[in-house]
Order: sequence, then structure tokens, then C-alpha cells
Amino acid sequence: MRIGKQDQAQTAIATSDADSITVRGRDLCGDLIGKLDFTTYFWLLVTGREPDERQRAMMDACLISIAEHGLVPSVQAARMTLAAAPEAWQGAMSAGLLGMGSVVAGSSEIAGRYIVEVLQDSRDKGISLDDAAVQSLEALKAQKKKVPGLGHPQHSSGDPRANRLLDIADELGVTGDHIRTLRVLAEHAPKIINRPLPINVSGAIPATILDAGWPVEALKAVPLLARTAGLAAHLFEESQRSIGFIMSHHADLAISYDGEGAQTADHKTA
Amino acid sequence: MRIGKQDQAQTAIATSDADSITVRGRDLCGDLIGKLDFTTYFWLLVTGREPDERQRAMMDACLISIAEHGLVPSVQAARMTLAAAPEAWQGAMSAGLLGMGSVVAGSSEIAGRYIVEVLQDSRDKGISLDDAAVQSLEALKAQKKKVPGLGHPQHSSGDPRANRLLDIADELGVTGDHIRTLRVLAEHAPKIINRPLPINVSGAIPATILDAGWPVEALKAVPLLARTAGLAAHLFEESQRSIGFIMSHHADLAISYDGEGAQTADHKTA
Amino acid sequence: MRIGKQDQAQTAIATSDADSITVRGRDLCGDLIGKLDFTTYFWLLVTGREPDERQRAMMDACLISIAEHGLVPSVQAARMTLAAAPEAWQGAMSAGLLGMGSVVAGSSEIAGRYIVEVLQDSRDKGISLDDAAVQSLEALKAQKKKVPGLGHPQHSSGDPRANRLLDIADELGVTGDHIRTLRVLAEHAPKIINRPLPINVSGAIPATILDAGWPVEALKAVPLLARTAGLAAHLFEESQRSIGFIMSHHADLAISYDGEGAQTADHKTA
Amino acid sequence: MRIGKQDQAQTAIATSDADSITVRGRDLCGDLIGKLDFTTYFWLLVTGREPDERQRAMMDACLISIAEHGLVPSVQAARMTLAAAPEAWQGAMSAGLLGMGSVVAGSSEIAGRYIVEVLQDSRDKGISLDDAAVQSLEALKAQKKKVPGLGHPQHSSGDPRANRLLDIADELGVTGDHIRTLRVLAEHAPKIINRPLPINVSGAIPATILDAGWPVEALKAVPLLARTAGLAAHLFEESQRSIGFIMSHHADLAISYDGEGAQTADHKTA
Repeated sequence: MRIGKQDQAQTAIATSDADSITVRGRDLCGDLIGKLDFTTYFWLLVTGREPDERQRAMMDACLISIAEHGLVPSVQAARMTLAAAPEAWQGAMSAGLLGMGSVVAGSSEIAGRYIVEVLQDSRDKGISLDDAAVQSLEALKAQKKKVPGLGHPQHSSGDPRANRLLDIADELGVTGDHIRTLRVLAEHAPKIINRPLPINVSGAIPATILDAGWPVEALKAVPLLARTAGLAAHLFEESQRSIGFIMSHHADLAISYDGEGAQTADHKTA
Repeated sequence: MRIGKQDQAQTAIATSDADSITVRGRDLCGDLIGKLDFTTYFWLLVTGREPDERQRAMMDACLISIAEHGLVPSVQAARMTLAAAPEAWQGAMSAGLLGMGSVVAGSSEIAGRYIVEVLQDSRDKGISLDDAAVQSLEALKAQKKKVPGLGHPQHSSGDPRANRLLDIADELGVTGDHIRTLRVLAEHAPKIINRPLPINVSGAIPATILDAGWPVEALKAVPLLARTAGLAAHLFEESQRSIGFIMSHHADLAISYDGEGAQTADHKTA
Repeated sequence: MRIGKQDQAQTAIATSDADSITVRGRDLCGDLIGKLDFTTYFWLLVTGREPDERQRAMMDACLISIAEHGLVPSVQAARMTLAAAPEAWQGAMSAGLLGMGSVVAGSSEIAGRYIVEVLQDSRDKGISLDDAAVQSLEALKAQKKKVPGLGHPQHSSGDPRANRLLDIADELGVTGDHIRTLRVLAEHAPKIINRPLPINVSGAIPATILDAGWPVEALKAVPLLARTAGLAAHLFEESQRSIGFIMSHHADLAISYDGEGAQTADHKTA
Repeated sequence: MRIGKQDQAQTAIATSDADSITVRGRDLCGDLIGKLDFTTYFWLLVTGREPDERQRAMMDACLISIAEHGLVPSVQAARMTLAAAPEAWQGAMSAGLLGMGSVVAGSSEIAGRYIVEVLQDSRDKGISLDDAAVQSLEALKAQKKKVPGLGHPQHSSGDPRANRLLDIADELGVTGDHIRTLRVLAEHAPKIINRPLPINVSGAIPATILDAGWPVEALKAVPLLARTAGLAAHLFEESQRSIGFIMSHHADLAISYDGEGAQTADHKTA
């Protein structure tokens, strides 16, 4: 049984024969290994073109900004998984990456699509970015939805990583319509939504990397690659000095049983 | 219930407060974003120390050598998963990484541990590397086991990626005891095992990166990070021009049913 | 940092102390092991109540209808993963389950939510199910969207599994508003969408199990549990008689390289 | 490139054509849906034969004994993952299953292989089970290894689930050489290892299900299927009353930073 309509049986990424491996038209051994840095290769792999210096620098900055943020839920999931299944680093790494969903690290992708939508709306309707932003924010307010890319539970006066990324984009001359759209949104949002809404890192990453020329459909690759590096650090540390079950123990203690037959005094033992 | 003995409730990777994020003792926004390349940050994250220029170059070369090798099984698994579940890039990425096991890409880790073992054996017993290698190879032969890090199904005259990595290590002055051990193994193996056994990329990666100073317990992180970049390229291409179900259809056609009630003429329909 | 608003630190599923394990208010060893079948326990675990005989029978029928359908993409992903990483069944199982997304097996959940929506619409607007169905189908047609739960690429004259499940629901006396809604949709769809659109198994499963009293928010659990059983059979067979790399080889051969530097005659080697 | 030697391009599990789906030689719609319970189907799928009444009852008991044990690490990983990525139940389920490794739930498989090994040793050497057990236990002691299937951190006077499973096996008449081997091991272990070592559930599951006729190479399927049911309950509860980030918050608070630049007073904020 063949599922769906898929009629182009091609790939443009790599091919090989007995003597050589070709990646994006280049000879892997002759042209790439030892010639490029990994960030440049990542850009080439995904887009098919080598990045210029500004693109590479912007990608490095984005990757570094979100690779590591301590014992966040996905890191805990990965470390608990390694503690329980030390035979499979790949499984623990996957348990960590599976938490890069719409709520946490995957929010970069959602914010990127939102920025693109507001920008496109301004172009399609022939209205100013300010008008497009205000209309969009009012619609979100009416639906009681969050504004993607703005606001932070911890850094209400501004997410330092976001500000740093935007400064770098300005310095590199990368700043373009996506960053401008995000800044216009951030300017109008507090008045409309009625609370502090600084640009957060999930807004700054897509805005800066889209302006650098990265495709919107590949946005999710940026937090996924970045976090793989952070998770690697945690899995190595877990293999040397395990905290997976300590964390799990304390997490368990924080929750009480209120199901059928629960007593007034919780009888959970440590 | 607390599982296992784990009594050091600490992490040395990162911490944060309302104003700052500290990673490996550095201020993320002031010292790292915009200052480092991603490969340097990966090394810093995992080891706690910034790499010198030779270490960074060796890591870049290793990562690039195995990030991408076309439509290998793990890439197919990832692309089929994205075709079936396009709402979750993180799931498709994980399906790809879960194939980085002991047989395929995870073989770097196994080869690294083997090289360390032969080297340690030579030191512990006070015998030459040649003697340690010969003893080890004869033991593998007696147990009819493969020699980790040597041999390739496609490149019997030598894996071009492996040779390139070893050349780079020589050029950078990285070459040390691990590469020497691997070369000694490769010198004796064909006579003992009685077939061509060139150094493969799964041998060259651990030998070169261990000589550069990377910890053996973190070897698995190298193929995992590398393949995340290659998988990102394939998932982006899959989202634009899907081949997941085409591949699955042809894979299905290659297998016939020989279970209970199977007819002489296979009645599978396309 | 605490993410999000979550203020009920309770679970109602299970608790334990040194002497006993309590699940859903019952003593695991005294009341459950050896007393229940697994399907009954699954229903109790998820809903907190033991199913009656009709509920159990309907769940058994649903689980069996989708546990196994040959070498579908998710099974291929799982078998390729086990071939590459035989040390971790849990990784291969996960690689298979990760393909239970919105397009393939997860479509039961989408169809279930659609049925609930049409039914609710009829109730909210005080219109007949026929009118609610027609309005909804016309809206889907206008948006060029598929009708969840109807149509099948292979069985255009009707999916035999769907018909069987609906017959069982009728025989058991389970049939209620959800099945009625699905049947009304199936009655009007061919005229409106203008092609054969029989009820498929992804429509019959949610309709029958919702009518049996299963919660709509737990629909995804049904295909996930079912496929775990099918995947177990494939992983056991893979461990005894491996086809993972055979399938991968044929899948690879079906795709040609058309990227930079591609020659007229494809130079891929087998 | 074709990896490895795999030359039997067949499957014996299922096949289908436009009119029917055949599973293990039976017609899915005519012979299976509505005719079998899920446990019977699971046994048929994996082994190719329908279980007799004793086999089905033993499997039900094994599955129920380990489906659920509260907020264990793998459940926490799954719930944190759903909280972060609510769009993908399949991802959260996988994050939970990936923790079924060698240390925690996968220990059933390890204990099963150990029981088979001791039993085989007794047969191969023509010695009594007692002698084979004593030799094996002394070897484990010399290597300072744990005895698979014996001992429990919480239930030092005996794991009530294990005792219940063994009683059921006796009542059903399932008890055979594998249970006898486990009991002989448990009889000698405390004297040799010098501490209380009651049979645990990871020992009782393989011993009872192997005696019922389940293949040792498919042992891992039992905890995986069982836990899928337990995880389904937790994911449904998480979707209704989320505790994922509450657990993560408390786990984070339990760990302090002792890396570069750590101050005497930990400056982590809640």
C-alpha cells in the first residue's frame, strides 16, 4: 500500500559511490573535512549554500544563546533516562529532544511563523507594520492568546539573551524586516495586552536568523541542534556524577496522592 | 522510593538567577553569545574548558566527517516519521538519533573504548603497542569478533574519510598514543584476521578526538551532534519534497510474506 | 525557574508505601494481579473505573483492529532502528511509536475530535445532525481539507475493519451519538465531496470507543497501546531474522540524487 | 550501500491485499476483531500461536504487575515531555519508554537471560540446579556484581508482586524449570552474598512467563507493553491536571551548582 501522493523520488543532499561521498555537490573528503567549521557545514547541509560571514556569525550566536539553560525539564528527562538506561545515550538524548515542543524550546518556530505572518499581512494588505502589528495584537487579545516571541516569566524587564542577539544583528548589519516586525510588535504589545512584554529569546532567534536568510520551515532545527550540545554536556556529567534519581526522588515527594482511598494524612513514604 | 546510591546533588554546568545565566563559570550574555563559535561552545559545555585551536579544528573535522552520508537507515526512519507525524520535528529527529546504536554510528564509541583498552593493556603489562595489539587481535579472532574501528563494506581499499582525519591530526600535531595504537592495530590486523582491514571512520574519529583531549565517556556525543545537523537537512527537505512514503513503499515491496497461509505466489499488492 | 501555572500537586493514579502498592484505590497485589485481564486494567488505569463487559469488549475490538497492518512506515522505522541499535529495544519501540502522528495512526484522535465537534455543533445550535454534518462538510470542502475518519487509499469500497467495528458496536448495544454522527457524515460526504468516502478505521475507532464511554482526551492512547503490541512482534522477528537493512537498501535505491553536480546518469552504486 | 548480511527478505507476521488483511494466517476482520481479547492477540502476534488459558492468564498477571508504580523516573520524564510538547502524545510516550533500560524496568530481560543461563549451565554440565546456582552466585560475588532478579531497595522482606506472580504460576500449573531455578537462586543467595535477597518482580516476571512458554528474546516486550498502559493513564491525567513543571521545579531545587565561579551560598533562585 502506498500512502499519499509523493511523486518526486529525489534527494539533493548527498550521494556516494565506491570512491567518494558527495554532499551538496562538494567532495566530502577533498572539499569539506578540514576546510569548514561545523556551523558553516550545518548551514550548507540545510540550505545547500555556504553562509557568508554574517550568516555564520548570526547562527553561532543563536545556537549559543539556547544550547544550555540548566536543569530545565527536558534536561531532567534526559538525565533520568540515562540513569535508568545507561546502555543507550541515543535514547537519553532523544528523551531530552522530545521535550523541544510547542511550549518550551519549540516556541522559536511558532514565534518565527507569527513574525512572518504579521510581515506578510502588512505587505498583502498594503498597510504599515504598525497597523499590521496592532491588528494582530488586538486579535490575539480578543482570543486571550499569548503573543509569540514576547514576555518572560523570569526576566520581566527584558530577556538579556534576546537583547544580545538583537544587538549582534544590528552590529553585523543583518537586521531587516523580521527584526523590525518583532520590534514593532514589542513596542505596541504592552499597551494593548496591558503588561510588560519584552522580546524574549524565542522571538529574537527566529527574527535574527530569518533576517540572516535561514528558511522559516527549518527554524526548528536551530533549537534542536543547540540543545543537542547542551544535552551532551548533561549526559556526560550524568555518566560521571549521577543526579537523575535524586531529582526524580524530590519530584516525587512534591506530589501527593488524592485518588480513591486517599487518606487525610498522605501515607507516601520516602 | 529512592532508587540507587546517588549522593552528590550538584551540577557544574550552569546556573541562573533573575539577572543572569552562568554557563561553565562564564556569563552567557556577556562572555559567550557573539564571542564563540558553536564548536568551541560544544567543547566548553562538555569538558568545562575552552578548546585550543587544534582541538577545535579536530572537532570540526570529526563532526563534518560523519554528519551526512545520504539515505542511511536512520535518515530513512526520520523521514518516514516526519511524513507520518509532521507536527513534531523533535519526534522525527529522535527517530533518527535512536538508530545511532552499537552497529552503525555508535560504533565510534565502541572503537574508542577498544583503542583505550589496548593502549592501557600495553602500559599495564609493560609490553610494546605491537605486542598488545597482536595479543588483542588474536583474542578477537579466537572469539570470531570484529575488530572495532577497522574494515568497511564499501571502501575495502581504505575509507577516504578516515585517511583524511588522520592526515589532519598529523598536520595539526594532534597525533598521539590513541592514533598510534589504531595504526598499529591496522598494521597487524590483515595478517592476523586474513582480510583487508583499513582504518574506518568509526576508528579514526575516536583516535583523533581522544588524542585531542576529548573524554572517552563523551565519545557518543560526537556522532550524535554531527548527525543532528545531517538529519536537520533531511527533515527540511522532507518538509519541502517528501520521499518518506516512497521509500517505505519500495522497502515494503522488497519483503514477501512467508507466514501461515502464505501461497506459493505471493499475493501482496503494491 | 518555574514554568507555567500549575497549582495542583496531586496524582490520583497510584501511591505506595513499604508494604503495599495502591492503584486507583485498589491493592495491586490483592485486588488486581491475577484478578483482571489487561484490557480491563488499561481501562481502569486511564479512567479510574473498571469497564463493564461491553466497554471491555469494544476496547478489545478497537485495539485488535489497529495493532498490526504489516510493514507500514512506523514498523520499518522500528525494525531499521533495532538493526542499527540492537542493544535498546526501548529505542526501536520508540522510533516506531514516534510515527503515530497526525497523518497515519494518530488520525483516530483527529477524527474523534471532529466527530465530537460536529455533534456538539448540532447540540449548541439546536440543529439536526444532518444539518450540522452538511454544514461541516461544506466548510471542509471550501477549505479543500480532508474529512477526518472517511476515505481510504486502498479500500475504496469500504474499510473492512471499520465495518466490523461498527457491527460489533451495534451488537453490543454500544452505538450512540458518536457513531450516529459518523454515519450521518458518511451518508452526506460522497455527494458533497464528490468521491467515494467510506468510513475508515480511524473514524470507526473513536466513534465506537467514545460511545463506549472512553474520554476523548485519551483517544491517542488506543492506537499507541495497540501498535506497541504489533511493534513487539516485529522487533522479536527482527531479532531472529533481520530485514531492517534489506528494506533500507531497497528504499535507498528508489531515490536518485538530483542535487548540485548530479549527472544525467545517476551514479549511485548499490 | 548495503549494510550487513541479511538474506531472508521475508516476514511471517502479516500481509494484505485490496480485500483483506491477514495476520498470522488469520483473517483480521473475520477471525480476530471481536473474537479475541487483547492479551491473546499480543501472544499470537509475537509468537505466531494462540495462547492456551494458562498462558493468557500468566501474561495478564505479568502485565498488570508492572504496568504502574506511581511517579517513577520514566513517568516523570513522560509527563514533563507532555507539558513541554502537548502536541505530540507519541513523543511523551516515547520519552517514558526510553527509560525502560537495563537499570529499571528492562531488568526483567536481564534476569530472564540469567535464569536461562544458570539452567542451561546445569544441563550442559550435568550438575544439579543447586550446584549451578551456587557456582554462579559465587562468580557474581567475586565480580562484585548484583544478582539479577533478587533484592529490592524498598521491600527487603519480599516483593509482594513477585510472591503473587509465583503463587499464580503454582495455581495455574505453569511452574517449571525457570521458576525452580529462580527459587534455588533465592535460596542460596542470602548465605553467599550475605544480605537479604528476596525474589523481586524483575525476577518473577521472566521466570513465570518463560515457564508459560514465552520466548526469552521477546522478554522486553512484556514491560514495554505494560508500561505503555500505565504511561497512557499518566499522560491523560497530565493533559487534565498538569504536574510536569511542578515536579521539574522541585527536582531543580534539589540540585545546587558547584561549577566554576560557584559561591559559598548558592545563588540559585526559585
